[in-house]
Amino acid sequence: MINVAVLGATGYTALELMKILLRHPQARITAATSRQEGATPVASVHPSLVGRIDLVLEDLPPEEIARRAECVFSCLPHAASAEIVAKVLAAGAKVVDFSADYRLDDAASYREWYVHEHPDPGRLGSTVYGLPELFREQIRGQSLVANPGCYATSAIVPLAPLLKSGLFAADDIIVDSKSGVSGAGRSPKLTTHFPECNESMSAYNVGRHRHTPEIEQVVARHAGVRPQVIFTPQLAPMDRGILSTIYVKPKAPVTEAEVMRILRDAYAGEKFVRIVDHLPATKDTVDTNFIDITARVVQGRVLLISCEDNLVKGASGAAVQNFNCLYGLPETAGLL
Amino acid sequence: MINVAVLGATGYTALELMKILLRHPQARITAATSRQEGATPVASVHPSLVGRIDLVLEDLPPEEIARRAECVFSCLPHAASAEIVAKVLAAGAKVVDFSADYRLDDAASYREWYVHEHPDPGRLGSTVYGLPELFREQIRGQSLVANPGCYATSAIVPLAPLLKSGLFAADDIIVDSKSGVSGAGRSPKLTTHFPECNESMSAYNVGRHRHTPEIEQVVARHAGVRPQVIFTPQLAPMDRGILSTIYVKPKAPVTEAEVMRILRDAYAGEKFVRIVDHLPATKDTVDTNFIDITARVVQGRVLLISCEDNLVKGASGAAVQNFNCLYGLPETAGLL
Amino acid sequence: MINVAVLGATGYTALELMKILLRHPQARITAATSRQEGATPVASVHPSLVGRIDLVLEDLPPEEIARRAECVFSCLPHAASAEIVAKVLAAGAKVVDFSADYRLDDAASYREWYVHEHPDPGRLGSTVYGLPELFREQIRGQSLVANPGCYATSAIVPLAPLLKSGLFAADDIIVDSKSGVSGAGRSPKLTTHFPECNESMSAYNVGRHRHTPEIEQVVARHAGVRPQVIFTPQLAPMDRGILSTIYVKPKAPVTEAEVMRILRDAYAGEKFVRIVDHLPATKDTVDTNFIDITARVVQGRVLLISCEDNLVKGASGAAVQNFNCLYGLPETAGLL
Amino acid sequence: MINVAVLGATGYTALELMKILLRHPQARITAATSRQEGATPVASVHPSLVGRIDLVLEDLPPEEIARRAECVFSCLPHAASAEIVAKVLAAGAKVVDFSADYRLDDAASYREWYVHEHPDPGRLGSTVYGLPELFREQIRGQSLVANPGCYATSAIVPLAPLLKSGLFAADDIIVDSKSGVSGAGRSPKLTTHFPECNESMSAYNVGRHRHTPEIEQVVARHAGVRPQVIFTPQLAPMDRGILSTIYVKPKAPVTEAEVMRILRDAYAGEKFVRIVDHLPATKDTVDTNFIDITARVVQGRVLLISCEDNLVKGASGAAVQNFNCLYGLPETAGLL
Repeated sequence: MINVAVLGATGYTALELMKILLRHPQARITAATSRQEGATPVASVHPSLVGRIDLVLEDLPPEEIARRAECVFSCLPHAASAEIVAKVLAAGAKVVDFSADYRLDDAASYREWYVHEHPDPGRLGSTVYGLPELFREQIRGQSLVANPGCYATSAIVPLAPLLKSGLFAADDIIVDSKSGVSGAGRSPKLTTHFPECNESMSAYNVGRHRHTPEIEQVVARHAGVRPQVIFTPQLAPMDRGILSTIYVKPKAPVTEAEVMRILRDAYAGEKFVRIVDHLPATKDTVDTNFIDITARVVQGRVLLISCEDNLVKGASGAAVQNFNCLYGLPETAGLL
Repeated sequence: MINVAVLGATGYTALELMKILLRHPQARITAATSRQEGATPVASVHPSLVGRIDLVLEDLPPEEIARRAECVFSCLPHAASAEIVAKVLAAGAKVVDFSADYRLDDAASYREWYVHEHPDPGRLGSTVYGLPELFREQIRGQSLVANPGCYATSAIVPLAPLLKSGLFAADDIIVDSKSGVSGAGRSPKLTTHFPECNESMSAYNVGRHRHTPEIEQVVARHAGVRPQVIFTPQLAPMDRGILSTIYVKPKAPVTEAEVMRILRDAYAGEKFVRIVDHLPATKDTVDTNFIDITARVVQGRVLLISCEDNLVKGASGAAVQNFNCLYGLPETAGLL
Repeated sequence: MINVAVLGATGYTALELMKILLRHPQARITAATSRQEGATPVASVHPSLVGRIDLVLEDLPPEEIARRAECVFSCLPHAASAEIVAKVLAAGAKVVDFSADYRLDDAASYREWYVHEHPDPGRLGSTVYGLPELFREQIRGQSLVANPGCYATSAIVPLAPLLKSGLFAADDIIVDSKSGVSGAGRSPKLTTHFPECNESMSAYNVGRHRHTPEIEQVVARHAGVRPQVIFTPQLAPMDRGILSTIYVKPKAPVTEAEVMRILRDAYAGEKFVRIVDHLPATKDTVDTNFIDITARVVQGRVLLISCEDNLVKGASGAAVQNFNCLYGLPETAGLL
Repeated sequence: MINVAVLGATGYTALELMKILLRHPQARITAATSRQEGATPVASVHPSLVGRIDLVLEDLPPEEIARRAECVFSCLPHAASAEIVAKVLAAGAKVVDFSADYRLDDAASYREWYVHEHPDPGRLGSTVYGLPELFREQIRGQSLVANPGCYATSAIVPLAPLLKSGLFAADDIIVDSKSGVSGAGRSPKLTTHFPECNESMSAYNVGRHRHTPEIEQVVARHAGVRPQVIFTPQLAPMDRGILSTIYVKPKAPVTEAEVMRILRDAYAGEKFVRIVDHLPATKDTVDTNFIDITARVVQGRVLLISCEDNLVKGASGAAVQNFNCLYGLPETAGLL
């Protein structure tokens, strides 16, 4: 059994992570931290875990975290995460970091998009991006993995093989995404107050959502060409799920069959990427680590449609998949 | 035209009230107050009102409010409301008070249930309860009306005529109510954060919800007998609507036909009370000032089922109905 | 008072229409038809109308409909509608037709997209499209108006002035729309069964939704240039509302201010088109006849974002607006 | 590994069952039947199962089912189920029956409530009711288990120990239940059409829901006293979850602590029954086999509040728990 710790254990990604870990044959949760909750039982903050976990939330120093756990999942917000992660790594533990802190190429991008000086800039550019479907070989043997953003996964997985094929324009890409409300986290605010967002759809952060550079840089790492992406996030009245509708322009006419073949070839053997003929619904993937993708050609443009659960393949399922890679376990352990 | 003011104009009942008043043939909104919003346009706080109202939120003293408006709707919270209302009344305006401040019989009940010393105790006991279906005659000519609580309306309207008939036990009444989330107000908190309350049902304030004494005292005023009520409020994942299922014990066996006749006789000619044969759904009443009621007899017990929109018949529609009564206007003005 | 009839009165657009008409100062509903319901009261099929309408559903011949009503609203499905409308017109009544039958330019387009031979092809090409904001002058004095499709309105209103300006490419337009489920009508089917579509988002009819040619042809009528539109309809888990996110390519760089000026100039004085600075939510427009629009420029591309209630501005509100135009009434009558 | 078959594999309980079985360490699904779907892959009917199950739906005779599987889960509707189950049992397989066919005491009750002559009356009265928390000893070694109804479980688990204690009146029990829409099955109908039941609550089958005799008879089997129950089922706008609020009258005054002690003693050591101090929400139990229960005393009456997932503890989770009992496996296998 591998002892693991969950940092920032009060939010939705941490809850989902703990649910998965409690089913994982090789993981044992030995610490759960929170700076705000005093010595509260985890199950008080997450009543769905009553009777399933006995841990108490603690505010632990990095060294103690590393003493308790071989592998640490950080569900802390950006900037706060890197502060702790650097110390946890120094103390000898492995880390899967849910925050955006280690996803981008360089400190300048980070400063531009997160408006913050990076606390641990030396690791930018060399930290592996935790999408095993694209970077499996680099993940093995690492001590730190940057777990992907939820929207980013929904765009990168379908886009990466197309861009790599060289058949599509890199500068004419639109990602129109619709997300469930859990993606906004667990802190109450007016925009996520039930009577405000229920029975409503709206766009937010148009043209300036922080997953934009992540999509561009990570696709570039895989495909060798840096795309320029217009990314429009939208809030949908549901708990979970991201539907991304992606519009890509082929350099020369392509057929649906050709696009589907590129996708199927790229993800042959991948357990969690399902290339499907039908139009997927987010509900098909809810509570699973699957991402479902299909393609259509409309008036010469290629539409890629992807569905995932933002809290699983978009966060905690991916994190466990990365954990499995880090430790050479079957990649599906705990995830089916 | 009657000039009216809306106090505490940032919440849901105020929004609903303004929507109704904007359609009302005899009302003109001349002031909207808020202590928190600076000189913000009402339409900035309520984007659905863009292009429909030009007022700016102001923090006005009671005398100025009374100068601007003949009739004042107070959507302020309890205790804060009575503080202002007393002064607005002194300055010569009429008031429809949405808060609980003037609903109870006496200051002792108020202190017990609201844990607060009443700021204006002299008016308790003599202020009319704004349910025109029961107290129409007393409302006319008043300067102050206590607008009913949303749950209270859903229980009082069906219960009052039954208790008045003398055929039912006053000490064996259960009111099991299910409410949409807008009833909890517009201030974000964890329990009304979308991913917490969506796709979920739960009870709250069991045995200690403040509408309990209101139901008991107001039924007593009408029926002459004080009932004892077990009231269980429950949160349902919807914006609006209250479904109350009420269990009453007849002193001697009754038939459904007899119960329906009591209800139909009591509310004959009432435009907003619909005694229906079918099992009503809250959706039948949403965005309307109707309350739909039916009755069933099951194993000797009478079930009363009522549906209303908590923001309309349960709050702002009722307030306009009271306004119409106060000014001798057709009771349906602005409400159909 | 103008006597009006509602054909196909059992569905959601008919219900919404009747609710508006019941508040309309100049309209009186004198007939409501249905082929399936026998002599059922309208209020049995629509329990929200109990106590508000006394009509019984009838299966009436066109001549009788025209005898009962000066103006007829047809909520019948396409093809069935034109069959009846032609006869109702011949019998001397005016018609607002909710179906798609009179929206397209010619019988060939109709045959291609609706896979049906048009029952009344002579009126295609000359029937006015019922968007008063664009075609007000032509509507006055007509006897037949083609009421717009819900998605079409959400795309045409923002697109038409931009295309007319000549500053935007006509062949690079993407309309990514998200609709509430009421848009799918009232006939139960698996895709709109609650546990299937609740908590889920999915695309449907990608590249082949019938509102595509409607958007293209109607924009062309107004702008003089025929756009080519990629239209992606998507189902969102809510009752009502359409959010359309529209991607348009300027021929030369434009600023947000310039785009907003084009929109504001085009719709200056229009009561039901609100050009707003903020990102609108569908909820801002629910139960109203407003369409809210804003624009953003992202990486050189213009994003138009529109919100409307598919049953009001997208159907029944628009129909009453057309009715008001037909009869020279104030265009807002019954609609505010 | 134990080979199992799923009969009637197109509905929601079957889907949930297959998801659980796919994770079960000792079960292998070897057949899935449907009379309507021809030779369709299971994953076509349930797209969430793409890549997880390769079976094709078949219309198999009972003997062939028993050849393919040691244990058969019947998700067929009542009456249809008993027809097949009797033959499957005769062919030597064990059966967990989801239908109501083997839950009641006798053919007369069945005829009264299901208005159908029981196809296999000889097994009524002797078939064990599949609630291991009450009847674990009888389940072991059986060949047939009657899987409980979803509402019934939510009422029986809290009621049984109280009635057994002898401290409560058996003839004054009210069960007010609120259920998610998946409880109504997967066949589209108007009442479960999204725009009808979304954003709405309503009661149905008041006083005549078929789980009423099931609750009464099963509590009687455990407690030795037959209660008389008023049961009110209500539809809530959510996919899953049942909240039951149960009102029980103590023969003499009791405290909350005493009621909680009865519950805690009754279910000490039970993994899936969580007696909690807080007011539970259905969401705490969604996607789990837990039932959460608390108690309150209000004005001398005891309120029991229970929450469960109608598709898991209310159906498919319970079925796997029964399967585990039948085969002497750890009762939590596949269920945590």
